[in-house]
Amino acid sequence: MFQPPRGTRDYLPEDQMKKNWVIDQVREVYEAYGFEPLGTPAFENLDMLQIKSGDDIIDQIYNFKDKSDRELALRFELTASTVRVVASHRDLVLPFRRYAIGPVWRYERPSELRFREFWQADVDIFGVEDSIADAEVLSAVVDAMTKIGFEGYIININDRRILSSIIQLAGIPEEKSLDAFRAVDKLAKIGRDGVIEELRGTSPHEEASIKLLDMLGLKGNPDEVLSMAKTMLQDYPKGVKGCEALEKLYEYAKGFGYAEYITVDLSLARGLDYYTGPVYEVIAKGFEKYGSIAGGGRYDEIVELFGGESTCATGVSFGVDRLVPILEEKGAFDDMHLGAEVYVAPVNQKVLVEALKVTQMLRNAGISTVVDMMGRRLGKQFEYADKKNIPKVVVVGARELAEESVTIRDMKTGEQEKVLISELAEKLG
Amino acid sequence: MFQPPRGTRDYLPEDQMKKNWVIDQVREVYEAYGFEPLGTPAFENLDMLQIKSGDDIIDQIYNFKDKSDRELALRFELTASTVRVVASHRDLVLPFRRYAIGPVWRYERPSELRFREFWQADVDIFGVEDSIADAEVLSAVVDAMTKIGFEGYIININDRRILSSIIQLAGIPEEKSLDAFRAVDKLAKIGRDGVIEELRGTSPHEEASIKLLDMLGLKGNPDEVLSMAKTMLQDYPKGVKGCEALEKLYEYAKGFGYAEYITVDLSLARGLDYYTGPVYEVIAKGFEKYGSIAGGGRYDEIVELFGGESTCATGVSFGVDRLVPILEEKGAFDDMHLGAEVYVAPVNQKVLVEALKVTQMLRNAGISTVVDMMGRRLGKQFEYADKKNIPKVVVVGARELAEESVTIRDMKTGEQEKVLISELAEKLG
Repeated sequence: MFQPPRGTRDYLPEDQMKKNWVIDQVREVYEAYGFEPLGTPAFENLDMLQIKSGDDIIDQIYNFKDKSDRELALRFELTASTVRVVASHRDLVLPFRRYAIGPVWRYERPSELRFREFWQADVDIFGVEDSIADAEVLSAVVDAMTKIGFEGYIININDRRILSSIIQLAGIPEEKSLDAFRAVDKLAKIGRDGVIEELRGTSPHEEASIKLLDMLGLKGNPDEVLSMAKTMLQDYPKGVKGCEALEKLYEYAKGFGYAEYITVDLSLARGLDYYTGPVYEVIAKGFEKYGSIAGGGRYDEIVELFGGESTCATGVSFGVDRLVPILEEKGAFDDMHLGAEVYVAPVNQKVLVEALKVTQMLRNAGISTVVDMMGRRLGKQFEYADKKNIPKVVVVGARELAEESVTIRDMKTGEQEKVLISELAEKLG
Repeated sequence: MFQPPRGTRDYLPEDQMKKNWVIDQVREVYEAYGFEPLGTPAFENLDMLQIKSGDDIIDQIYNFKDKSDRELALRFELTASTVRVVASHRDLVLPFRRYAIGPVWRYERPSELRFREFWQADVDIFGVEDSIADAEVLSAVVDAMTKIGFEGYIININDRRILSSIIQLAGIPEEKSLDAFRAVDKLAKIGRDGVIEELRGTSPHEEASIKLLDMLGLKGNPDEVLSMAKTMLQDYPKGVKGCEALEKLYEYAKGFGYAEYITVDLSLARGLDYYTGPVYEVIAKGFEKYGSIAGGGRYDEIVELFGGESTCATGVSFGVDRLVPILEEKGAFDDMHLGAEVYVAPVNQKVLVEALKVTQMLRNAGISTVVDMMGRRLGKQFEYADKKNIPKVVVVGARELAEESVTIRDMKTGEQEKVLISELAEKLG
């Protein structure tokens, strides 16, 4: 028997319905924000995908050659392709605001929650320097999560300029700052001692590491933490700029309506090397064990790296598939109905063509309808409708047809009612 | 500058909007038919994909190895994966009716209308032997095409059993019948003489080829053609069965409402080797130059070939991307609006947070809204809204805010109106 390839999965109708529902909700919110859809291919030229990815990611890329020996690779995220589009279409009206929802592929160790094919839902804004763009993409994601049924959030924010200034202030040499970023990023995973161990390579003095970790430990209410950070970093103009960017972000968040959830966490790094300003992550309250559900940040230097004009950019992404099991745990799908609402049951094959006409009439009225295809007796048809959880059966018989009528059977109560065909759609709609 | 890989394309927002619209319409029709969504991975194990594909297709497969040397390949259609699911989930309630809309990949020579990545929209029914399933999948596709704006169709139908009986009747040996299928399938492309040339390898006598082609030339009204075909094939029980299947299909089509479009074309083969019964294709009237827009057929032996229990199956597929340029030619998108309906314009940065609140209120009411992010003067903001074709601007100023009001500007007429914020959403909704 054939299985889907290791690390991938099939979505049987019940699961695909849930996933489609999540995607539809998210898309509705993104479009209410005026984000425009952008579609890019599933694979890209390998060299393009390698530009902005760190070594970790390169190991996870599915790469291959086409039949003309071109080096291609499945996309591992949706941003790189978007940056390619922005870099090569210099006539785009800025700000350019796009959303993208689609699958990406990473060769990672599969687990119950981690697949090698998974769907991401992104919003990004190109061409805006001010923190309002960061505040807005974060707002779009928070609103999308609210739309699909989450209620409370923990939103951690930081700014890469603050982080790099603290690293400098701690006495870690500039050229080691990327290594320090990566070490700090593992804080939650490997703990304080683990980070100090990792930092040994970046700093001659353990003292610097401890000082760094103490400063990074600052976390809490944005007003308080940012005021302390500004004092601490007063000799580091970039760090102060980072603080100001977050102050603005917090101010805008009040307008967008999610300020109450924000915490400034000076240890937040968000892994990827290319962030240049604010970084952020969203955790759903009550579902902390799933870690951050959405995350992103500002990457002002990437468009230029891709050969475009220097263009500010910020964006956020979340994993659609990972949301589904969390939403299941919340019971978000309990009232959702898969498949047809109405089953049309001809009493015999002689009335089948008439039954098809009734079926089509209901479908044209937007009512999801199936009709018997097996020539089964009426009792068997009721059994099938019951098994498929279809709430209403419309029985089509010769005698009723002569009166331009059919019978509606409620599968829950067993009640039956004779209805004129001309009134059927309205009755069932 | 980086380009998308050869044979693929980007969908800039205008194009992606059109494509999304087509997909949404199609999905709505498929769901009204009670088809259930099924999701399968973009790549499969190569050996699985090779089972049901002829040599032509194998040359078009994008295959590659993952980092554990597994032989994988991007799917070149949506059916094989679905058959894999049906074969391996023996507990599915039959009939199993699924739809799938997604990208597939084929390494073909790219052209203006042919890309290496393209989207297909399929419906298939498993477990129904009767032609009603063929009639229904065809109906779903015709209704989907009607929903997106087409009006008249040419639906050519045939049955593989008729075709193989005619091949036998013409005196072509059984073991050559697949070659004969393939030759016949090229009739439209290479003409009568070309087919006779190709058939030379299948038959010792040119006479047989000419006889074959004469019989295959039968085309027209189902009642007439099928009655002639039944007489002609009276000694070929399988051929007669094929005629009866098409008679039934035609009868059902009357119930579904598309019978007027049907032509029986005894030369129709639909390429793929694995069809076992009715085959069909749909051409849009007025757009004949694009060839068949949808096509499919019955493949009763494939589930078993994939290791499942013997299960009847039939299905139809059409190319979503190919529809978009045709629909453009029809002007189907002329009234479609990309992006935001409302632009919120703060008169200065002091009222920005209040402007964000107004923006969020409109978004929550489902009105697609953007807000200035560039701190531009009002005149510049109007220019931008104009360039982006946004019909309404809401001006937020300190004086109006004091009265809990804002000003709506109609960008077409230039008219302005002061409105209470509490009434704004209703006014713009």
